[in-house]
Amino acid sequence: MASDRLKKQIQFILEVDKVKNIFRMTKIHDGTRRENDAEHSWHLALMAFLLEEYSQGSHIDMLKVIKMCIVHDLVEIDAGDTFCYDAAGNLDKLEREQKAAERIFGILPEDQGNELKALWEEFDAMETPEARFAAAMDRLQPVLMNFLNNGGTWKEHNISKEQVIKRNCRIKDGAPELWDFVSGLIDEAVERGLLRDK
Amino acid sequence: MASDRLKKQIQFILEVDKVKNIFRMTKIHDGTRRENDAEHSWHLALMAFLLEEYSQGSHIDMLKVIKMCIVHDLVEIDAGDTFCYDAAGNLDKLEREQKAAERIFGILPEDQGNELKALWEEFDAMETPEARFAAAMDRLQPVLMNFLNNGGTWKEHNISKEQVIKRNCRIKDGAPELWDFVSGLIDEAVERGLLRDK
Repeated sequence: MASDRLKKQIQFILEVDKVKNIFRMTKIHDGTRRENDAEHSWHLALMAFLLEEYSQGSHIDMLKVIKMCIVHDLVEIDAGDTFCYDAAGNLDKLEREQKAAERIFGILPEDQGNELKALWEEFDAMETPEARFAAAMDRLQPVLMNFLNNGGTWKEHNISKEQVIKRNCRIKDGAPELWDFVSGLIDEAVERGLLRDK
Repeated sequence: MASDRLKKQIQFILEVDKVKNIFRMTKIHDGTRRENDAEHSWHLALMAFLLEEYSQGSHIDMLKVIKMCIVHDLVEIDAGDTFCYDAAGNLDKLEREQKAAERIFGILPEDQGNELKALWEEFDAMETPEARFAAAMDRLQPVLMNFLNNGGTWKEHNISKEQVIKRNCRIKDGAPELWDFVSGLIDEAVERGLLRDK
């Protein structure tokens, strides 16, 4: 017989499978469909440990960074994905996500629910070196995908260079060298007509 | 200008996006479609740190376990997913995957390519405590999904209880308590007609 603790853990593992059905605006490499939160989170986790050398500061806790990447979008199971350039949708995002966090992390045994909720809150606050680096990955990934997809969501939603810079300049806080790279990529996207200049 | 090293890292990050199009036999929770390797790998990484307390041995390096979960299926970009109950497909699996590993991990800067290849080989060999635990997650996850999906691939491919036990009893090596749980789940699946007894 499984213990109550294990039952709760298994119930959570099954519940979060729903994140495979939460689709983001960004499309996968071949442009055939939008990517979902599970795929996106996997990509961030991989990027985090491959790009660790660019993190700001002398030492970051990579296990914590990866855990943040893995869990940062779970609240979207209830709250849905809010497009980062959707001003209206972002007004009540925090409230919707807070409610979702209570329910979803509440499925776990209390100690683990608290740990995951704290990881999600730390990620969202972007104050610790780990959160800044994880957030840098979360911004870098869609930039790469949009570039690969000939403009992707930038073109689809008529996004300007200024909007992309405003959204993504926080990469500098977590990984300065990667911001230099992204900055160059944004300029190249404008030159190639993938992104609106003004 | 990005360094040669960063260019290789970015090229790899874009290349492995293809794993989002490698579909496994197992279906997602609602049975509407097969899951892909990126989603599956994300799920394993999450399960690994949630279920760490069941790992065999006094201490495992969880960062290493998670890295293994994240990269263990990348070779399938070239080699494709081989259904675990497909005896013929499993004959030349190793050769196909070895060739894929050379190409895919070869995109990275040499030190990182070697690290990821070593992680993949360690996972496959199932000899270290980390590899055994990661492999236990890799077996537990589809069992859970098949159970959730009213038999899923077990029913679809007329798999027997004996085959499922043979495939999954290795869970015991990495996480004995989880094997007790899975063993009970397999019995329940037979009772409920989700899995063939003989």
